[in-house]
Amino acid sequence: MLYRVKCIVQYDGSRYHGFQRQTNHHTIQQEIEKALSKMHKNNIEIHAAGRTDRGVHALSQVFHFDSNLDIKPYNWKSAINSLFPRDIYIKNVEIVDNSFHSRYNVKSKEYRYYLSLNEYNPIRSRYVCFINKQLDVEKMIEAIKLFEGTHDFTSFSSSSLDKNSIRTIHKALLIQDDNELMFSFNGSGFLRYQVRLMVGALIQIGENRREIDSIKELYFKKDRSKGRFNAEPQGLYLYNIEY
Amino acid sequence: MLYRVKCIVQYDGSRYHGFQRQTNHHTIQQEIEKALSKMHKNNIEIHAAGRTDRGVHALSQVFHFDSNLDIKPYNWKSAINSLFPRDIYIKNVEIVDNSFHSRYNVKSKEYRYYLSLNEYNPIRSRYVCFINKQLDVEKMIEAIKLFEGTHDFTSFSSSSLDKNSIRTIHKALLIQDDNELMFSFNGSGFLRYQVRLMVGALIQIGENRREIDSIKELYFKKDRSKGRFNAEPQGLYLYNIEY
Repeated sequence: MLYRVKCIVQYDGSRYHGFQRQTNHHTIQQEIEKALSKMHKNNIEIHAAGRTDRGVHALSQVFHFDSNLDIKPYNWKSAINSLFPRDIYIKNVEIVDNSFHSRYNVKSKEYRYYLSLNEYNPIRSRYVCFINKQLDVEKMIEAIKLFEGTHDFTSFSSSSLDKNSIRTIHKALLIQDDNELMFSFNGSGFLRYQVRLMVGALIQIGENRREIDSIKELYFKKDRSKGRFNAEPQGLYLYNIEY
Repeated sequence: MLYRVKCIVQYDGSRYHGFQRQTNHHTIQQEIEKALSKMHKNNIEIHAAGRTDRGVHALSQVFHFDSNLDIKPYNWKSAINSLFPRDIYIKNVEIVDNSFHSRYNVKSKEYRYYLSLNEYNPIRSRYVCFINKQLDVEKMIEAIKLFEGTHDFTSFSSSSLDKNSIRTIHKALLIQDDNELMFSFNGSGFLRYQVRLMVGALIQIGENRREIDSIKELYFKKDRSKGRFNAEPQGLYLYNIEY
């Protein structure tokens, strides 16, 4: 009998062309579906909470699939992980009600972005964005609060993939620890490139190349062209998903 | 006129078959020599303090080469780094006396090894060794002191590359921070695989699969076969070199 399996997966996005299945590129979804199809001796399709772009990492992405395999719940985790490469790891497996859906049931997501103002370090270069200059972090901490609430984020989205650009951010936070900055955005959902474009605008504010109030103007202007700066993908992590 | 250039280089060893030039493999030395030869429009050979194995990282490897280029000392660093891939980075460039030699003048080297007892994390899997079980760290801290001093390290070396296996370790240290362990070895020089075989023996002691005193016995036995365990390369860093 078919039952539904919910997985929390972590991955290092460095080697992949993003999460979502693509015809000519190596993606994380393909790697997961390949492993599960091998286990099931049958094609298995997974449904994830959302996609992540090329080079972006996840500490808590969620997907589900349906299985008829006779595996004890506590054996699922090691059975799946034994089929994955080192940069994909299932943190948790749970048998859930058949009505659960990884995407439709999302209550909120948290993305984090890590930025270092220290000198470049090649050991960390796939996992943090380096900008080796002093930024006005006080101004950035003031500005990030303008992202909280319900806004039209057209100016902070990619060309035309999302029809409805209104999103709600419950909490936006910037924490400084010496020369290391951590941005956290907790919201109902995010447009493509939204987090990296918000972080990009905050970096420009920290460099005194953009005014704090310009963020409010961008909500009204819905302008995808003006001074957009997409922060590099390797600093971005899908950090948590609440159901 | 030829003058000598000393560089401190950092690298992420994940993508390379070790430091030293090899005919059929991609190595860090090749990548550096390719960049320097391009700058000089001439074949440049570098001389490093030593080699590191496949998957091993460096936060402070040293090499030198001779140049006749008319470049100001403070411009060297950015000139070289602009030619490197993201996982190799020159931290410091210095014009030195022609008598300086990166290998012959080494006074001491420090290697560090990072081991995590936490659950596996794919984001860190290239940079730390994961052993997800409890170890008797007190015993390991006692045992690591037996590596200090001058000993015949034949039992902690690879098959037959080093003719003289006597080395001096000035300081050996194990520091615990919750479930994260950091081993530090500071010595006059190290045999191939020596650090990883020493860490391997300490892990076996922590697992209660080896007695502390067996380390002393191994010095006398000069036995390359008995219960050797080579800890994984990705936890190992060439951390510092003193001249």
